[in-house]
Amino acid sequence: MNSENFTLSERIVSTSYIRQGSQARRSHEQLIRHLLEQGKCPEEGWSESTIELFLHELAVMDSNNFLGNCGVGEREGRVVSSLVARRHYRLIHGIGRSGDIAAIQPKAAGSSLLNKLTNSVVLDILKRTGVRSVVSCFVVPMATGMSLTLCFLTLRHRRPKAQYIIWPRIDQKSCFKAMITAGNITLIFHCLLSDLCFEPDLGAESILCVHSTTSCFAPRVPDRLEELASLCAKYNIPHIVNNAYGVQSSKCMHLIEQGARVGRIDAFVQSLDKNFMVPVGGAIIAGFDEAFIQEISKMYPGRASASPSLDVLITLLSLGASGYKKLLSERKEIYFFLAQELKSLASAHGERLLHTPHNPISLAMSLDGLQADSDKAVTQLGSMLFTRQVSGARVVPLGKEQTISGHTFHGFMSHSEIYPCPYLNAASAVGITQEDVRLCIKRLDKCLKTLRKELNVAKSSSPVSPSSQEDENDATK
Amino acid sequence: MNSENFTLSERIVSTSYIRQGSQARRSHEQLIRHLLEQGKCPEEGWSESTIELFLHELAVMDSNNFLGNCGVGEREGRVVSSLVARRHYRLIHGIGRSGDIAAIQPKAAGSSLLNKLTNSVVLDILKRTGVRSVVSCFVVPMATGMSLTLCFLTLRHRRPKAQYIIWPRIDQKSCFKAMITAGNITLIFHCLLSDLCFEPDLGAESILCVHSTTSCFAPRVPDRLEELASLCAKYNIPHIVNNAYGVQSSKCMHLIEQGARVGRIDAFVQSLDKNFMVPVGGAIIAGFDEAFIQEISKMYPGRASASPSLDVLITLLSLGASGYKKLLSERKEIYFFLAQELKSLASAHGERLLHTPHNPISLAMSLDGLQADSDKAVTQLGSMLFTRQVSGARVVPLGKEQTISGHTFHGFMSHSEIYPCPYLNAASAVGITQEDVRLCIKRLDKCLKTLRKELNVAKSSSPVSPSSQEDENDATK
Amino acid sequence: MNSENFTLSERIVSTSYIRQGSQARRSHEQLIRHLLEQGKCPEEGWSESTIELFLHELAVMDSNNFLGNCGVGEREGRVVSSLVARRHYRLIHGIGRSGDIAAIQPKAAGSSLLNKLTNSVVLDILKRTGVRSVVSCFVVPMATGMSLTLCFLTLRHRRPKAQYIIWPRIDQKSCFKAMITAGNITLIFHCLLSDLCFEPDLGAESILCVHSTTSCFAPRVPDRLEELASLCAKYNIPHIVNNAYGVQSSKCMHLIEQGARVGRIDAFVQSLDKNFMVPVGGAIIAGFDEAFIQEISKMYPGRASASPSLDVLITLLSLGASGYKKLLSERKEIYFFLAQELKSLASAHGERLLHTPHNPISLAMSLDGLQADSDKAVTQLGSMLFTRQVSGARVVPLGKEQTISGHTFHGFMSHSEIYPCPYLNAASAVGITQEDVRLCIKRLDKCLKTLRKELNVAKSSSPVSPSSQEDENDATK
Amino acid sequence: MNSENFTLSERIVSTSYIRQGSQARRSHEQLIRHLLEQGKCPEEGWSESTIELFLHELAVMDSNNFLGNCGVGEREGRVVSSLVARRHYRLIHGIGRSGDIAAIQPKAAGSSLLNKLTNSVVLDILKRTGVRSVVSCFVVPMATGMSLTLCFLTLRHRRPKAQYIIWPRIDQKSCFKAMITAGNITLIFHCLLSDLCFEPDLGAESILCVHSTTSCFAPRVPDRLEELASLCAKYNIPHIVNNAYGVQSSKCMHLIEQGARVGRIDAFVQSLDKNFMVPVGGAIIAGFDEAFIQEISKMYPGRASASPSLDVLITLLSLGASGYKKLLSERKEIYFFLAQELKSLASAHGERLLHTPHNPISLAMSLDGLQADSDKAVTQLGSMLFTRQVSGARVVPLGKEQTISGHTFHGFMSHSEIYPCPYLNAASAVGITQEDVRLCIKRLDKCLKTLRKELNVAKSSSPVSPSSQEDENDATK
Repeated sequence: MNSENFTLSERIVSTSYIRQGSQARRSHEQLIRHLLEQGKCPEEGWSESTIELFLHELAVMDSNNFLGNCGVGEREGRVVSSLVARRHYRLIHGIGRSGDIAAIQPKAAGSSLLNKLTNSVVLDILKRTGVRSVVSCFVVPMATGMSLTLCFLTLRHRRPKAQYIIWPRIDQKSCFKAMITAGNITLIFHCLLSDLCFEPDLGAESILCVHSTTSCFAPRVPDRLEELASLCAKYNIPHIVNNAYGVQSSKCMHLIEQGARVGRIDAFVQSLDKNFMVPVGGAIIAGFDEAFIQEISKMYPGRASASPSLDVLITLLSLGASGYKKLLSERKEIYFFLAQELKSLASAHGERLLHTPHNPISLAMSLDGLQADSDKAVTQLGSMLFTRQVSGARVVPLGKEQTISGHTFHGFMSHSEIYPCPYLNAASAVGITQEDVRLCIKRLDKCLKTLRKELNVAKSSSPVSPSSQEDENDATK
Repeated sequence: MNSENFTLSERIVSTSYIRQGSQARRSHEQLIRHLLEQGKCPEEGWSESTIELFLHELAVMDSNNFLGNCGVGEREGRVVSSLVARRHYRLIHGIGRSGDIAAIQPKAAGSSLLNKLTNSVVLDILKRTGVRSVVSCFVVPMATGMSLTLCFLTLRHRRPKAQYIIWPRIDQKSCFKAMITAGNITLIFHCLLSDLCFEPDLGAESILCVHSTTSCFAPRVPDRLEELASLCAKYNIPHIVNNAYGVQSSKCMHLIEQGARVGRIDAFVQSLDKNFMVPVGGAIIAGFDEAFIQEISKMYPGRASASPSLDVLITLLSLGASGYKKLLSERKEIYFFLAQELKSLASAHGERLLHTPHNPISLAMSLDGLQADSDKAVTQLGSMLFTRQVSGARVVPLGKEQTISGHTFHGFMSHSEIYPCPYLNAASAVGITQEDVRLCIKRLDKCLKTLRKELNVAKSSSPVSPSSQEDENDATK
Repeated sequence: MNSENFTLSERIVSTSYIRQGSQARRSHEQLIRHLLEQGKCPEEGWSESTIELFLHELAVMDSNNFLGNCGVGEREGRVVSSLVARRHYRLIHGIGRSGDIAAIQPKAAGSSLLNKLTNSVVLDILKRTGVRSVVSCFVVPMATGMSLTLCFLTLRHRRPKAQYIIWPRIDQKSCFKAMITAGNITLIFHCLLSDLCFEPDLGAESILCVHSTTSCFAPRVPDRLEELASLCAKYNIPHIVNNAYGVQSSKCMHLIEQGARVGRIDAFVQSLDKNFMVPVGGAIIAGFDEAFIQEISKMYPGRASASPSLDVLITLLSLGASGYKKLLSERKEIYFFLAQELKSLASAHGERLLHTPHNPISLAMSLDGLQADSDKAVTQLGSMLFTRQVSGARVVPLGKEQTISGHTFHGFMSHSEIYPCPYLNAASAVGITQEDVRLCIKRLDKCLKTLRKELNVAKSSSPVSPSSQEDENDATK
Repeated sequence: MNSENFTLSERIVSTSYIRQGSQARRSHEQLIRHLLEQGKCPEEGWSESTIELFLHELAVMDSNNFLGNCGVGEREGRVVSSLVARRHYRLIHGIGRSGDIAAIQPKAAGSSLLNKLTNSVVLDILKRTGVRSVVSCFVVPMATGMSLTLCFLTLRHRRPKAQYIIWPRIDQKSCFKAMITAGNITLIFHCLLSDLCFEPDLGAESILCVHSTTSCFAPRVPDRLEELASLCAKYNIPHIVNNAYGVQSSKCMHLIEQGARVGRIDAFVQSLDKNFMVPVGGAIIAGFDEAFIQEISKMYPGRASASPSLDVLITLLSLGASGYKKLLSERKEIYFFLAQELKSLASAHGERLLHTPHNPISLAMSLDGLQADSDKAVTQLGSMLFTRQVSGARVVPLGKEQTISGHTFHGFMSHSEIYPCPYLNAASAVGITQEDVRLCIKRLDKCLKTLRKELNVAKSSSPVSPSSQEDENDATK
């Protein structure tokens, strides 16, 4: 309420109480002031009360909430369902304009403010988590893959003759498809565990960019960004980094910071949901050159959903920088706990924890014994874990072939044509709890024992495959 | 509650009342059954109670809501803010998988069901609103422009040699940028009011597609889709239709249906927010060939936000097909009302309603008199309307130049290099009310009178431009 | 946001848009200002957006939402469940203080304001609906019965020697129990249809009060308040009116206004849920003497739930006075529609609509024919209607006996020992729709036909009661 | 969804995923089953997801949510504002019926179930927190004071000749007013610190009951319930215990259990908000004789708000018994922390912590020094703490007189006519945090220093009271 209304309230309820109420309101305003002034994630998290007050304030600034507005356009932010209006806090106009997803909307000052502040707060978090020299970023309501595509499309305008992307292989469909969709002829590097090999004789101008990766499934480890970035600088080749869930790891962020310091990184892209515990569907495109990042944001034709921006803003305001840091350090601790537990379990079953000290998030345990027993046993383990509500534990068999958009990958999922053993992945990602680890280890142990028993029975009595009743292999993907 | 729990409840509250309660529950289930069975928009809208019950049911089927789940993956649908969880009804996993935005997610049966049902319900609505022979469609969490880009990128894989898009000019940035972003060399047709001219000597295989438009600002009218589609069929050229806000008009939908019947339309794209009164950020990509539509959906690399799907599903379930039809017929009535009112107002001010009988949504009124008086008066009118909370009334001056991505448009906003007069647009879009029209006409009348007075004063007394204090011209864009 | 924050916002989003946003905010503030200034129900309803903004503003004024508060008391408004906090808009402190339910709370300026404003808005509505001269009222979070008890308890302090209440009989348990609970020896008047009989020889000081009724089930009609009030004035006897659902009827309100004008009414009590379409559990105690109403409010020992106040305030702000009046006039129209339909139905089944022109809400249709056929048929009709989801259609058999708190009523439910026929009640209460009436008439018709058929079959073939399979008689109570 | 709908879903999304979803749903149902079967607070808390699913299930069982219902009664659970409907989870019918607040409602099976289950869960918690032998209880939507009144009114029907209540004095208005409102002539015992004195010569039948207290402000301590209960048994006098915020203290609960074991306790009443961290406005009336508790519940005339029941049910389901126990043990720990901190602070300022080992919640620190300096200093301290957002720290001056309902209390607030020193109260109530204590001590320290300085200045320089500018004394009440 404004001061006039507070004064009127003093006639109804006693002056001293209203004044205290008005002073209390000011402390919320003070938090908002800091945010507007500094554009940074507050150190301490806000209460839900402050957050909702702030969102209400933003909403009343949008024309669809003007009490006297009359709309005769084709896009007026009208909403027919009150369930829908409410869940978006009546912020209906989305973000951006035809020309630029980061642009201000005349009809929606509140949504525009939301958009600008979110980008600013997210930039601050990227700095705090390790990429100190990042200059610009924006949230885009597309997942990591499509966001990478947008970067490649932007580069294509800069380098119309380029035909190749240099890509240290990583076996995740969306990484590969991000390039395919952008319509480039792709050069795939068959690198085992991120070995770097370069083909300078192609001619630098025929190369669209290097597309490297930080966060990934073990046993793969992050690419050696310093070396890649140095080469990119040397040969004048753009460099796009897929940092999908790397914000949560100081190691991944450090790689990017170092890469940019010693060499060239044009943009790095990270997922909102994987790093900030929000719903799937948003990413951050960030970089060290304001002009290039703006060029990407101008490449997105038309307005866009404000939903991912809203989610990440609410989340960061409620956590505060300190709350987010706390989550990250918990994640790190649990990573070591998970490694320890997996190691013990592996040795109890005659397996081993694969040695991947450079992967700060994902771990892998060999499944040699299982493989030895039966071809199907490895995939069956995947089904069993799925059925027992262990989610995210990926089972990788030997020598799988997979064709994506016409290209055939050998040894798919293991990032290599010649990986020597099947294995199981488990990751310590932000938000994981000790309880998750304990339950996972317990159930995994049980599954392995059951499988072993079944296999023994099957061997001794019958030639029929024991896994025939469970064929939900795809469940583990 | 299941039958066991109902039986237990009978011990606590009397049998006959619990039975009636259980029977009442069945009537909600019955509605859900119809939806699952037929995949169509229900004829009558659902109550909020049924909708929320249904969404809760979907949510409990997603692994992030499993009571006994343990997650050791990098993407587990964890949410840190309860505000965020709640506003998404705890549906966190988004839609699609790495390979395909329409694919089913093993971790999220509920979200997958949501995705499939939304696409199915939306398909039904496209049929009911006029495109009877549509075969397939999907909701994509990107606005119309980016969705068109996705279509063009898909076509580029099919037609790697194509360099041109044939595009009857329409002056909306995102339409143009949708092509630019896809990285094509564009051929622009300078057609006044959708005249069609074809360049067969280019060679059909060098043409990526024809990119036509239905809904648009008057005085432009929808393209002659039948003729375009016939030519496309004849020359074997793909045809993508921008049907941005055309679902709300039976005329636009009829054009598409006819085009597909007599010729070739590969895909037509429409905005969710403009047609279904939901927040900005989603579109529907639809077509007549299942395989091609799937190809597009597979072109989107990675998962995507479920937010636009959720919004449109809630909205259509709450309206029902009959409720939506009612909204559309109200829109049509108000279109005639708006035309009548604008015509009267125009004649009172010595202007005229431009003759655009083929544009079923947008109207235009000349501003010749204003232009005659002063160059700045036309743009000043825009500012004045903005300040007076008339949103969406677009003022189009004469001969504006605009450069977008390196291409310069003459006479920008009027779809023509040589449009003879400045004008003002007003549209009757879905959700508009009679009150909107009345207020708009009243305020417009007042603005015109004020401007006239100011101009007269200015002329008689001083050479200084009267509009200097209001330079928010961009506000009208 | 305060002006400082708006200024800061101008640096982020352009000045003109922020100014328009800030101006839009002022229009919400303006509505709040009117409410604070005048304490009246706004003529036009508020949008949900304004209402929620206002409630947020109130909440931040309560100490449990102070950002820097530390609490070391035994009642600090702490809430453990965020579901609970949210549903109360974080207004946790309730209303009133130990000494007075209408008092201001130092810890909760916002809740205090809510309480005061609600009482003030409700008072305005009582005036507008017909009791022009009402002087004071307050909302109490107890249903009508318990609120009447509170009035009687207050009178007992004023009239310690009083032993009797004069009560024109009305057969609703809670009316009777309201007196029993207050611990008075009650004198029951066996009046058919509100005949008034007075016992002046008891001595006025032995009479606690007259307890009269306006709204009631037909065929009973409202008491003749003018005559009762005149006698009360003459003999100096307090007069409490049970106006349970009478606010919705101008006739009931007029009776009270007239009674107070010509005679004496000390307080009149009405239900929140029945008159204002809010959840069960609140009432308004109103009167013409500020001191007496305050005495009642001080009789409530301790704080109380703010929930009913919040509900009625939200409802009245969202309807506005005009919206509420519209609801009331619709109710009146449907009353005549219901009367017409019932009359036709009755005559088609050889029954009649009972002649009760003075009852403005409830109607009754005779069930003589049914009674003639079988004793059980009348109650069976009740069960059948219950099963067919016709709620609120009360079936009243002949000569039912009921003992409440030791007192036996003959002909219970018919307000009379000697009512001549069984009947069925239906009412047109606020919020009823034409569809309700149509469905009710259709189902009632079907039930009567089915019953008739069953009875004929039973008569012709077997002596066994046909109603044995349906014994949910209590369902109709 | 029912099994039919799950089967239909399998056609849309793959069988194995739907089955897992359906199985996940069953785990929610399982929790509900346990609740229905055992009527006890679950050991582990439920997720918000389960709670909301359950509340939705209850709501669809109420007739106002029946899809085919037609209502022709005067109370149909219609709600006009969707904000209101939503915040009550569409449970509109309240609890109870005309005759009994614990009765089942035919129109509202869901609300009836809610009511029964809440009472049952709350009973379980009373047992677990120490009153093992409690037999029956119910939640009533009135605060403690009015609930005590209801008990007294019930007793009056049993003991029509009784004129006295024996009441060990406790200086809280609502305790006193609870008796006044019930209309009894009260005998007040001026007992210092709960000394018990009995007047057997009054005649037991003239005594309505003994009204004792457990939880209270220090330096008062809980009454000696064992002795009182024994005397009540001996003389056949009913005994009502005000256990306002005693559920949170095992000591208070133990006193009640012991009292009932060795003597007579008819009912004990406790606040919902103070013990369960829900909004103000509900209480639990409990006892050891089912018939008497039912008699009280039947004394409440009419339906009642379900809001407090809903709040406490949500809260207890979300905490679980273990979560609630954890809160209580934290409270206990902080009690000792607060005592330690207050003691240190007191000695630093030349004051002392009053010796009240039997009060398990509230503490008191003397203010002798302050009093010695100035009469006003003590009340000024109260104002200062209020202004500095220390809430709940009660300052009790010497020899205050207060008249309530005609009775004058000397030494009001100190429970005694002759308490020797002024003091300040602070309590460790459920939900308090270490941070609350730290802030309170810090601010209190600062206030005392400031006061001391001001007093010294005032003494040395001027006779004018320095406190004149702060006179919000009532703020501390």
